[in-house]
Amino acid sequence: MKKVDTLLVGGMVLTMNKALDRFPDGAVAIQGDSIAAVGPAEVIRAEYEADEVIDCRDQFVLPGLVNTHTHMAMTLLRGMADDLRLDVWLMGYMMPTEREFVSPEYCRLGTQLACAEMIRGGTTLAVDMYYYEADVAAAIAEAGLRAVCGQTVLKFPSPDADSYEDSLAYTRRFIEEWKDHPLIVPSVAPHAPYTCTDEILQACADLAVEFDVPLQIHISETRLEADESWEKYQKRVVHRVADLGVFRAKTIAAHCVHIDSEEIIALAKHRVAVAHNPTSNLKLASGIAPIKEMLERGVRLSVGTDGPASNNDLDMFEEMRLAALLIKGATYDPMVLPAKDALLMATRWGAEAMHLGDITGSLDVGKRADLIVLDRDPLHNAPKFERDPNSAYSQVVYASQASDVQHVMVNGQWLMRDRSLLTLDADQIRREAADYARRIDAFLIAREGNVLNKLVAIGGLEQEESFEIQVKARINGDGEDLIRRLLDHPSVEIVRHKHYRQYDTYFLFEDEQQGRVRYREDDLVSEDGQLVSVRTRLTYTIPEKEREFDEAVLLSRSRFIAPADRPLRFYREYFQARRECEVQKDRLRWHILYKGVLFYANLDRIVEPQVEARYIEIKSRTWSQKDAEFKAALTTEILNDILAIEQADRVRMEYVDLC
Amino acid sequence: MKKVDTLLVGGMVLTMNKALDRFPDGAVAIQGDSIAAVGPAEVIRAEYEADEVIDCRDQFVLPGLVNTHTHMAMTLLRGMADDLRLDVWLMGYMMPTEREFVSPEYCRLGTQLACAEMIRGGTTLAVDMYYYEADVAAAIAEAGLRAVCGQTVLKFPSPDADSYEDSLAYTRRFIEEWKDHPLIVPSVAPHAPYTCTDEILQACADLAVEFDVPLQIHISETRLEADESWEKYQKRVVHRVADLGVFRAKTIAAHCVHIDSEEIIALAKHRVAVAHNPTSNLKLASGIAPIKEMLERGVRLSVGTDGPASNNDLDMFEEMRLAALLIKGATYDPMVLPAKDALLMATRWGAEAMHLGDITGSLDVGKRADLIVLDRDPLHNAPKFERDPNSAYSQVVYASQASDVQHVMVNGQWLMRDRSLLTLDADQIRREAADYARRIDAFLIAREGNVLNKLVAIGGLEQEESFEIQVKARINGDGEDLIRRLLDHPSVEIVRHKHYRQYDTYFLFEDEQQGRVRYREDDLVSEDGQLVSVRTRLTYTIPEKEREFDEAVLLSRSRFIAPADRPLRFYREYFQARRECEVQKDRLRWHILYKGVLFYANLDRIVEPQVEARYIEIKSRTWSQKDAEFKAALTTEILNDILAIEQADRVRMEYVDLC
Repeated sequence: MKKVDTLLVGGMVLTMNKALDRFPDGAVAIQGDSIAAVGPAEVIRAEYEADEVIDCRDQFVLPGLVNTHTHMAMTLLRGMADDLRLDVWLMGYMMPTEREFVSPEYCRLGTQLACAEMIRGGTTLAVDMYYYEADVAAAIAEAGLRAVCGQTVLKFPSPDADSYEDSLAYTRRFIEEWKDHPLIVPSVAPHAPYTCTDEILQACADLAVEFDVPLQIHISETRLEADESWEKYQKRVVHRVADLGVFRAKTIAAHCVHIDSEEIIALAKHRVAVAHNPTSNLKLASGIAPIKEMLERGVRLSVGTDGPASNNDLDMFEEMRLAALLIKGATYDPMVLPAKDALLMATRWGAEAMHLGDITGSLDVGKRADLIVLDRDPLHNAPKFERDPNSAYSQVVYASQASDVQHVMVNGQWLMRDRSLLTLDADQIRREAADYARRIDAFLIAREGNVLNKLVAIGGLEQEESFEIQVKARINGDGEDLIRRLLDHPSVEIVRHKHYRQYDTYFLFEDEQQGRVRYREDDLVSEDGQLVSVRTRLTYTIPEKEREFDEAVLLSRSRFIAPADRPLRFYREYFQARRECEVQKDRLRWHILYKGVLFYANLDRIVEPQVEARYIEIKSRTWSQKDAEFKAALTTEILNDILAIEQADRVRMEYVDLC
Repeated sequence: MKKVDTLLVGGMVLTMNKALDRFPDGAVAIQGDSIAAVGPAEVIRAEYEADEVIDCRDQFVLPGLVNTHTHMAMTLLRGMADDLRLDVWLMGYMMPTEREFVSPEYCRLGTQLACAEMIRGGTTLAVDMYYYEADVAAAIAEAGLRAVCGQTVLKFPSPDADSYEDSLAYTRRFIEEWKDHPLIVPSVAPHAPYTCTDEILQACADLAVEFDVPLQIHISETRLEADESWEKYQKRVVHRVADLGVFRAKTIAAHCVHIDSEEIIALAKHRVAVAHNPTSNLKLASGIAPIKEMLERGVRLSVGTDGPASNNDLDMFEEMRLAALLIKGATYDPMVLPAKDALLMATRWGAEAMHLGDITGSLDVGKRADLIVLDRDPLHNAPKFERDPNSAYSQVVYASQASDVQHVMVNGQWLMRDRSLLTLDADQIRREAADYARRIDAFLIAREGNVLNKLVAIGGLEQEESFEIQVKARINGDGEDLIRRLLDHPSVEIVRHKHYRQYDTYFLFEDEQQGRVRYREDDLVSEDGQLVSVRTRLTYTIPEKEREFDEAVLLSRSRFIAPADRPLRFYREYFQARRECEVQKDRLRWHILYKGVLFYANLDRIVEPQVEARYIEIKSRTWSQKDAEFKAALTTEILNDILAIEQADRVRMEYVDLC
C-alpha cells in the first residue's frame, strides 16, 4: 500500500482530462501539492491509504473552476451603481470612486472578499486585472488561491500611477518580484486598445515577451469601440492590435464581443485566448459575443465573470451556465456548447488559455491538486440519471449552484471544508468591507450635484490627453511678424492653417474644487471671411496640478470633452453655475511640425471683453510624462531661440481670467 | 398594544407595493393568514406585540417570488436529456417517457419535489401546467404553496386522456372540485395553438369564461410555430388565437418569443398576461422574446422558469436576473428592465398577471402573508450600499442566490424556517425520485435502437391526427362503375381529383412493438399520363389500437410523418430493418364531401406484387373521438347505402400484408 495525504472516495469523478475520463464511483489520491492517482474507487483503495479519507458519495469531484477575467477588488463596488448608461456608470461612478478610494489597502481587502466568494463558489484559478497588483497578488497568495495577476497600464493617470511610464516601471518590478511564486503568475495588462496608445501596447508586449508572462487586454467590448477603431485607424480592433505585435505575447483577450470573421481567424491564428464574459456583456448592454464562430474556427475559449461591479458576483456556475444558454438562443442552435463543453471551458480550457494547462484544469496524475467537491443530489438537482454520460455534465452546468460546493482544495491545501473557509476570516472581511461601503456612500452623497457627475449624465464625455504643454505671451502689434518668424524658420513645417471665431462661455462654481465647464462655439472661417462650419463642445477642467518646466508651463490635469449638442440655454439651466463669463476671440491657428514634433501655434485677438489684447500660444498634448517633458524642452527652444520672447511678456493667465 | 401572531423586525423591508415603499429598518406584522401591518420597525413595535418575534437584521423581507409558467412534475425528468434538437428532445425523449411514466403518483411526487425546491428558492406562487392536475393541486396544497393549476388539453392522446374530449371533461370536474380552495386556483390549459384545433381552443375558452378561471397557453415559442401558423392560417399566432375568442378568458400566454409589433399591441389590448421564460427560450434555442417592446406597449409581463426539463431548475432568482440581463444585451440598452422592475416582474406583476394582485404579490396590509426573508449580507453580496434606493433591488436581482433564502411563509403559514422545510419530507421525496430516475434510465436503455427514436433524430417529424376512419373492399372488374355510383350520388360533392403512382417501401422490425416505417414516393400524374411532381415522405406507425365501429373499421393509432429528403438507400442503412417489403400501386383519388363532411375515396390497382387485385378505400381523419364516431357512421352509410358492398368483400388487410 502506498501512503498519500488524502483520499477522496465514492464520488462521481469528472476528470475533464483529454480522454474525458469519468468514474461514477471514483477516487482521487492527493500527495503534497499534487494528484497521485485518479480512477475507480475500488482500484485506488486497493493501492493507496491515507490518514484523511473523505467520503464523497452523492457528490461530484471536479477540477476547480477557472475564471479567466475579473477585477477582484471591485467587490467593494458591487451594486453601488447599476442599470446606468455605460459612460455614466464608468465616468460618473466607477472612475471617480476608484480615484478617491483605490489604495494598496483597498486592493487587499477587496481581493480578500473576492477570494472568500470565489472559494465558496468553487473557483480555484482566477485571472485578475487591476491596480496595485502586488497587493492583489499578496492577498490571493495568502488566501491560497491560484491566479494570474495583471497590472493595469493606461494612457490616463490611474489610481496607482501618474503616467503610463510609472505603470510600466511598477509592472516590471511586480513581475520580477512574483515570477517564481508557486501560486501566482504575474502579468501585464494594457487595459484596452482605446485606452492605450500604440507605444503603450508595444511596450507592454515587449515586457510580456521579455519575461515570458501573459498579457491581458480588453478587446472590442462595445460596438462604439469597434466603430471608433475603424474611424481612427481604418483597422478593426483585433487587426490593429495584431499589427502592433501585441500577440507576440501570450495574450488573454477579454470580451471580444464586436469582432468579425476575419478578426476571429486572426485570434485563432495568433493562438490568442479569449475570455468570454456573458453576464457583464449583457448587463452593460455591450452585446452577445460570437462564440459559436470562435469555437468553429478554433479560438481558445474560456469564461470569466468580469468584475463584481458589472456582474454583480463572481459565480462561475452562473457564468458557465449563461455561456452555455446564451449562445444557443442567439444562434437558434440548441446543440452548440453542450454542457460538457461549457464545463471544459470553465476548467481545462481556461487553464490552457492561461498556459497553465500542464499544472491545473483537470484531474490528471502529476497535476497540482486544484479540485472541488460538489453536492450531486440537492433538491434543486434531483433526481440524477446515469444512462447518458452527458447527464452528469448537465447536472453541473444547468442546475448546480455555487452553494452546492462543499470542499475546495488548491495546490494540495484545503481552502474550504464543509463550506467553512480555512484561510480567510469572513466576518472581519465583511466588517471592513461594510466600513468602506459606508465611506463610499458618504463620498458619493457629498458629491451629489458635482459638475463632472452632471456632465457625465449627459453622455458623450471623453478624457483628453493627461499632459498639456502650453506657453502663452502677450504681444504688441498684430503679431504678424512674430508668427512669420516662426513659420518661416527652417526647422518648422506647416501642416495646416485654420481661422476660427471662438465664442466661449465659462461656467464657474462656488466650490473651486468643482472645476469649471467651458461651452465653446467654434466658427470656422474661410480665407474670404465666410463661415464654413460651426462646432460646439463642452470642456470640463478640474483644478489643475501645474508643474513649471523651464520657461514653459507644463500642465498635468484632467480635461474632459464632450460634443455640446444642446443649446447654451440648456447648459445654463442644467449646471446652475454661480457665475458665467464670456470670452470671444479671433484665432488664427497653425498645426506645425518643429523638428518633426507636432505643435499648435495660436495667434489670438480678444474681441470680448474689450481688452485690446493679442496673444500668441504654443501648445502640445500627450499621454506620456516623458514625452511631455521632451515637448516642454522643445517649446522652450521655440520661445527662446525662434520667437525670442521677453520674460516679462510671458503670461500664466488663462482667457477666463480676463473677465 | 395589539396582539398578532408574528412580527418580523429589523430587516430591509421591500414591499414592492404601488408606492414602492421600502423600510430600511422595517417590520411586518402577521395575523392569521394576512399582513396586519408594515412599516418602520419603531412604529410597528410600538403598536404590536407577538409571541413569535423574528430578528431580520442584515436580511431582506420581501413578498415571495411568483413563477408564472412551469411544469412542476417535470422535475422527475431534470437533466435526463439535454443539448438536443427540439424535435429530438421532445418527441424522442420527453413525450415517450411521459407516455410511459406519467401517472397520478408520478405527478404527485414530481410536484412535491418541485415544491421543495421552490420553497427553498423563495417562490410562494407558481403557475403550473401539466397532466393529472388534480393530483398536482393536491400535492401543492399539501405543501402549503399557492398556485394556479392548469390541466393540459391537447389534440393528441395524452398521458391522462385518450382524446381532448376526455381532457375537457376532466378539466371541468377539476375546476368544479378546486375552485374555492384558499391556495389553489384551477385553470384550463390548451397546450398551444399548434397542438390544438380551433374547436379545442374555443372549448377551453368557453370553459374558462364559464367558471371565470384563468386560461394558460404556450404562444409562439419557436420561429417554426410562427412560420407554420402563417402558412396554414395566413395569420400570425396571436391573431389566430385572438380571432378564435380565446382572449375572452383571463389568459396567461407563456413564451411569446416570435411575436411582432402588431401581436404585441393585440396582447396589450386584450390584457393578456405574458410569462417570459428566458432560460428555457435560450436552452431550447427558441430565441429572445421582445420584452422591451412588450413593456413599452403596456403588456402585462411576468417571469417563469418553464419546466425543469428545459431549464433545468426552478430558481426564480436566476430567472429574474436573466430576464434583467438578457434584454439589455439584446437591445443594447443598459437601462431597460432595471433591477427594481425585474423584481416587480417576479413579485407583484406576476400576481397581477394571475389576477391575484388583490391577495398577494406585495407586502400590503390586508393581503395574504406570502413572504420571504433573504440574507442581505452573504460574502457574494457584500458590501451593501444605502445611498441609492436602487442598490437594494440590485442586491436582490443581480447577486442574491436561491440559497440565501432563510424563511418562507405562505398564507400566514411557515413553510421553511432557517432553510428547513416544514411541510415536506425532503429525504423521502429524494429517495422516491431517485427510484423513478432508475426506472426511467432502464426504460430508455431498453429502447435504445428504437425506431421512433431514430426517426425523430432525423428531424421534421409530426404527429398526425389521432383517429383514422377507414374502410376497404376488394372489387371485381376495374371499379369504374362503383366509383361512378359514389361520385354521381346526390349527397356527394367532388372537391378534387388526383392520379398517383405510389412506390412504397415498408421497413419491418424484429420486435413488432417497434411499429413500422413506410417510405413512399408519390408520383402525381396528369390526365395524359405525364409526371407532374414527385413527393417522398416517411410515415411511422406504432402498433395500432383498433376499434371496430359498425361495419367500418375505426382506427385509433399514433402515426407520425416526416418529409423524406434523403435517398431510399440512406433510410435502408439507417433503420437496419429485419425485412423490407415493396408495394407499387396506381391510385385514383377523390376528395369528396358527403353530407358536407370531407372523405377521401381511393381506387387502387396493385402493380407490385403482381396480385391482380383492385381495392376501393373510403377514409377520413380527425383529432376528436366524437368526430371519429360520427364519421364512422357516415362511412357505414356510404358503404351500405351507396356502394352496397357485400360483407364478404370488405377487408381488414393493409397493403403491406400483400408481400
